[in-house]
Amino acid sequence: MPKAAFNKTVSALCAPPIPVVQQWVQSYDGGFGPVMDLSQAVPGYPPHPDMLKWLGEAASDPANARYGKIEGEKNLRAVYAEHTSDLYKASIEAKNVHITSGCNQAFISTIMAIAGTGDTILMSNPYYFNHETTLSMLGIKTEIVDTNPDGGFCPIVSKFAKSIDKSVKAIILVTPNNPTGTVYSESLLREIFDLCQANGIWLILDETYRDFLPVETPQPHSLFSIKNWEENLVQLYSFSKSFCIPGHRLGAILGGEKLVSEVVKVMDNLQICAPRPPQAAVAKALPKLGSWREENRREIAARSKTLKAVMSDLPDWEISAIGAYFSYIKHPFNDISSVDVAKSLATKRGVICIPGEFFGKNQEQYLRFAFANADQAALGNLKMKLDGFTP
Amino acid sequence: MPKAAFNKTVSALCAPPIPVVQQWVQSYDGGFGPVMDLSQAVPGYPPHPDMLKWLGEAASDPANARYGKIEGEKNLRAVYAEHTSDLYKASIEAKNVHITSGCNQAFISTIMAIAGTGDTILMSNPYYFNHETTLSMLGIKTEIVDTNPDGGFCPIVSKFAKSIDKSVKAIILVTPNNPTGTVYSESLLREIFDLCQANGIWLILDETYRDFLPVETPQPHSLFSIKNWEENLVQLYSFSKSFCIPGHRLGAILGGEKLVSEVVKVMDNLQICAPRPPQAAVAKALPKLGSWREENRREIAARSKTLKAVMSDLPDWEISAIGAYFSYIKHPFNDISSVDVAKSLATKRGVICIPGEFFGKNQEQYLRFAFANADQAALGNLKMKLDGFTP
Repeated sequence: MPKAAFNKTVSALCAPPIPVVQQWVQSYDGGFGPVMDLSQAVPGYPPHPDMLKWLGEAASDPANARYGKIEGEKNLRAVYAEHTSDLYKASIEAKNVHITSGCNQAFISTIMAIAGTGDTILMSNPYYFNHETTLSMLGIKTEIVDTNPDGGFCPIVSKFAKSIDKSVKAIILVTPNNPTGTVYSESLLREIFDLCQANGIWLILDETYRDFLPVETPQPHSLFSIKNWEENLVQLYSFSKSFCIPGHRLGAILGGEKLVSEVVKVMDNLQICAPRPPQAAVAKALPKLGSWREENRREIAARSKTLKAVMSDLPDWEISAIGAYFSYIKHPFNDISSVDVAKSLATKRGVICIPGEFFGKNQEQYLRFAFANADQAALGNLKMKLDGFTP
Repeated sequence: MPKAAFNKTVSALCAPPIPVVQQWVQSYDGGFGPVMDLSQAVPGYPPHPDMLKWLGEAASDPANARYGKIEGEKNLRAVYAEHTSDLYKASIEAKNVHITSGCNQAFISTIMAIAGTGDTILMSNPYYFNHETTLSMLGIKTEIVDTNPDGGFCPIVSKFAKSIDKSVKAIILVTPNNPTGTVYSESLLREIFDLCQANGIWLILDETYRDFLPVETPQPHSLFSIKNWEENLVQLYSFSKSFCIPGHRLGAILGGEKLVSEVVKVMDNLQICAPRPPQAAVAKALPKLGSWREENRREIAARSKTLKAVMSDLPDWEISAIGAYFSYIKHPFNDISSVDVAKSLATKRGVICIPGEFFGKNQEQYLRFAFANADQAALGNLKMKLDGFTP
């Protein structure tokens, strides 16, 4: 009998990276101290006690057990609009907000709203791997545009400009960047937004890590103050990182009303609505836990300093980029691929990180360290763990 | 400047049906008693108090705030495998289970794992509207196969057989059916499964409403006892209905290990993992709340009887099909479309239901009543609400 078939574009995908790298550490014998997980971005500290209380209250409330609105709870949309209006010094309204189950869902539902099979999306190299796999499985083409490794892997505007043709529907940028941590400048973002406006394409801005921008940053950028921003800009965000609640799955999209109404159609098919209890809890937390989140921002800035100090004691290893949350590290083994280095680091030294190859072409020399996962004491141990290491 | 574009397959979709029909009631003046919402399937009673307690405990546990496994919590997968093994008298294992955020997500992630642009899926008419819109927005073709209105709208095997060609990847069935409520017989399901096996295509069986099967049903069907079932069968389920927790978004897929590993790749891009707190709570509830769920099943069977009694007093209205949860009602207005009848019922009489046209072609004569939403007292009022009604 003939066998039932699978979808070729999905079959062609590799298994998801995070579980793969986390498996590598299984055979580590503990000889170099406790396992240090610098792979999936999860701050090591727990959520604020009030947050846990609000989550518990919301989850046990029978009102939240019923279906909710596809676009998200009215209250959370209003609170998030106010929060982002303050943050970006702009007039963002509740109607510009669509709540999702995390930022990967914000991405896929935005992409489905604006692009289909045969369309092209421009991304910079290296890229966040789920963006690439999401587009692949949808049959959407990606064009990966080279960046400048000596400039923190920042996008090169002229290269994007050259790549735009009729099939291109959007440019995706991640800032602060995943995997490099690099924070794109206001002027760079402006230039790329102008390019998108001039060509009638979307700029999709994934700002999952914006809560960990350097402490002195006045505001992430001013794109929301541009007239008619909503005709070309979509912004993606996750509540997972700064509230430490990835297990509850909550993210958000900011866009024009028309974009939101298209995402509503997609979301209805994806899962009807995001889970309601975390929406109720985050609506409470957003105005109230500002100083706790600010403390964490400072803590993660301090971890960044610690990492720099540790790495300066390891002259063969190089920090190629560092910023909010992540650092992109050049390993010293020229002839050995990043996959082999990362695998060996996990099995021999108990350090889990993500090989550069998972983020794009010509990345064999790099490793992504999610340094913000580890506290400063743990980061201090990194010297001992890397010292004398050979893959 | 040129405008940034949207995805045509999504633009072509209508707005999601449920919010649309729920808006119709806004102008109802209350003259015929309280609003009766027979649209979206939500049992009117609240979750069990223990369920709410477990949900609250799980949501306030910092361990559940961290990322979980893509395929679902180990514990819930094991408990659900045991539960379904008992229910179907079969050997279903944890490795056959993938947890999702509700049953729409179980559907889209299964579909993406097995079909892509240009492939065809067979569905019966009438169909569950989200199945059709999901396929449309993915660029997957649907062929809608006629059913037998006089036989409770059951699928006709020979018509499915005739429609199978090389582009067909799967047949979708919903049993108990949405919108008709009809429960497909063991022999019908067997015949269609045989057809799928013989042709090397998938049978996707959506059993969201299986907890409301008639009380005397020994087991929903025996397909899981067929050797190599996992090579052609995928089953979808929702925890929303029988636990009354749609706001928490939780569903499940049963399939072969290979199917689960393909869905894992899709889910990683859709939202990484289903929310963890409801998974922990349902893992506790599934073995413990069996008798409460059984009571509800009996209550809903009683509501079905009440509806039949009410409708028999309204000779112009006809129950065309009735079964678990839903009834498919033939309205008496030959020349008026189901949309106009439903709209008018909402605005004039405060009864919200879904017009047949939303479920397929040639359905202008029908309305879907989710009778299980309303308690027996409310259903008693339906006579007064329908009596003398003209659109």
